[in-house]
Amino acid sequence: MALDALPERRPATRARVLAVRGRGRTERPDDLAAEEPMEIRVGGPGREPAPVAVTMRTPGSDFELAVGFLHTEGLLGSRDELERVSYCEELPEEEQRYNVVTVRLRRPFDHERLRRNVYTTSSCGICGKASIEHVEVRCAGLPDGPVVERDVLVGLPEALRRAQPLFDRTGGLHAAGLFSAQGELRSLKEDVGRHNAVDKLVGEALLAGDLPLHDRILQVSGRVSFEIVQKAAVAGIPIVSAVSAPSSLAVAAAQRFDMTLVGFARGETFNVYAGPERIDVSQAPGVTSPDS
Amino acid sequence: MALDALPERRPATRARVLAVRGRGRTERPDDLAAEEPMEIRVGGPGREPAPVAVTMRTPGSDFELAVGFLHTEGLLGSRDELERVSYCEELPEEEQRYNVVTVRLRRPFDHERLRRNVYTTSSCGICGKASIEHVEVRCAGLPDGPVVERDVLVGLPEALRRAQPLFDRTGGLHAAGLFSAQGELRSLKEDVGRHNAVDKLVGEALLAGDLPLHDRILQVSGRVSFEIVQKAAVAGIPIVSAVSAPSSLAVAAAQRFDMTLVGFARGETFNVYAGPERIDVSQAPGVTSPDS
Repeated sequence: MALDALPERRPATRARVLAVRGRGRTERPDDLAAEEPMEIRVGGPGREPAPVAVTMRTPGSDFELAVGFLHTEGLLGSRDELERVSYCEELPEEEQRYNVVTVRLRRPFDHERLRRNVYTTSSCGICGKASIEHVEVRCAGLPDGPVVERDVLVGLPEALRRAQPLFDRTGGLHAAGLFSAQGELRSLKEDVGRHNAVDKLVGEALLAGDLPLHDRILQVSGRVSFEIVQKAAVAGIPIVSAVSAPSSLAVAAAQRFDMTLVGFARGETFNVYAGPERIDVSQAPGVTSPDS
Repeated sequence: MALDALPERRPATRARVLAVRGRGRTERPDDLAAEEPMEIRVGGPGREPAPVAVTMRTPGSDFELAVGFLHTEGLLGSRDELERVSYCEELPEEEQRYNVVTVRLRRPFDHERLRRNVYTTSSCGICGKASIEHVEVRCAGLPDGPVVERDVLVGLPEALRRAQPLFDRTGGLHAAGLFSAQGELRSLKEDVGRHNAVDKLVGEALLAGDLPLHDRILQVSGRVSFEIVQKAAVAGIPIVSAVSAPSSLAVAAAQRFDMTLVGFARGETFNVYAGPERIDVSQAPGVTSPDS
């Protein structure tokens, strides 16, 4: 499997901004989180690659995003199926070339089936339960472990934030980090789209042959929707922690997949919405408050 | 044009949560922002409605979301084209029935053209510039006005928050509000998806015959991506303000569409990324700080 050389991409761009502060106003430069469309094309042997999806993303880790997206959407099983991942060589302008990632597979890829799948989902029912079942058939199941200590868990949001190189400059990027059960940061990805940051992590693991991620914790910077739980479940991640709130369907899906789902992870407090058995709250925390 | 009667929908659901606070832990009920899939089907005269999109959304304002989505995606011009908007009567289970909205048009709707459109976009270029041009052809252009006073603008985020009925309960819902140039809240929608909240506002205006929204300000609770600017531009909204950061493509699109784009609107401060001429900063603010 071949990966083309990656160009330098800019995850932030500069703009002039009029900053209004009370009565005062100044014009100054400002860093913006970069957002550009990326098209993912897929082809098998003897068949021209065709577009599968377009996503608005922050440039960087584009190949990881492409294969991570295909994996979490159930369209790519393992790296053994990959022949080559590359940018589009046919497009004349560099700006456009680096916004098209082509994934060539060693096995046939049926675009018509992909299209029919959408309709199959529709006819078998549109509701939260059907959405969860649709994902469940693609999941191999999560392991019983690992067990993470309370002190490790409460440290993850701050560890993610400290390691997030772009957030302080732009204020506009979501982050997703993979941690060991001992709280060591193994990888961090940033993106304007939360789901893209997770796909970049999963794609990186797929390319490294590290799937399923049975001994990892996924920490995300914002809220948790169904989509995030879905992607984590397909990648085999047993513990997901978020700084903010989960949705109803995220909680229902985590409970069904036997996933541990933590929300509102702030300072010394957090809420456990599913799978509390993977959290060891027995040891004394570093800081205790009088009312705890 | 007929709108079916709307059932009571629940935008929040209840769950049991294990709340860990320092050394203590308690089990208690918690409100979650509701998330459910919704399928949008479209059909013309003599043709069975077929699925166009599935979006994960917070139930409520479903008809507004359906027609708002179709409008901001360039698939529906005005309410004159609408024959009927309804839930799916064929599905036996109530839960599923209310997750399918069927939009019947008075004119033909070409599903194949919709599909081809996706590929046309691809072949004419995948980059920020092409994305902006793709939206520009669907926009009638924004008016020069209105001009909003600095004091009005800084009051919008707090006015939105005060009027947001669900956020305090769930902590997990985005809000989008339409304001007059004098700062009066005209409509507010909440959703787990920021883009859905905007589509609900636009759909409501379309159904009321209020498009284009040339004298309105759109205030959103979070960040501003290209998608939000795109939807506002198609609906004719000249001023968009956000509590958090815009992306690079959101700023580039706003500049191209002659839209006023405000970010980091917090307390007495905000940043203007495009169209400062619609903001009157001449009058004294209510609160001044020594360094301003």
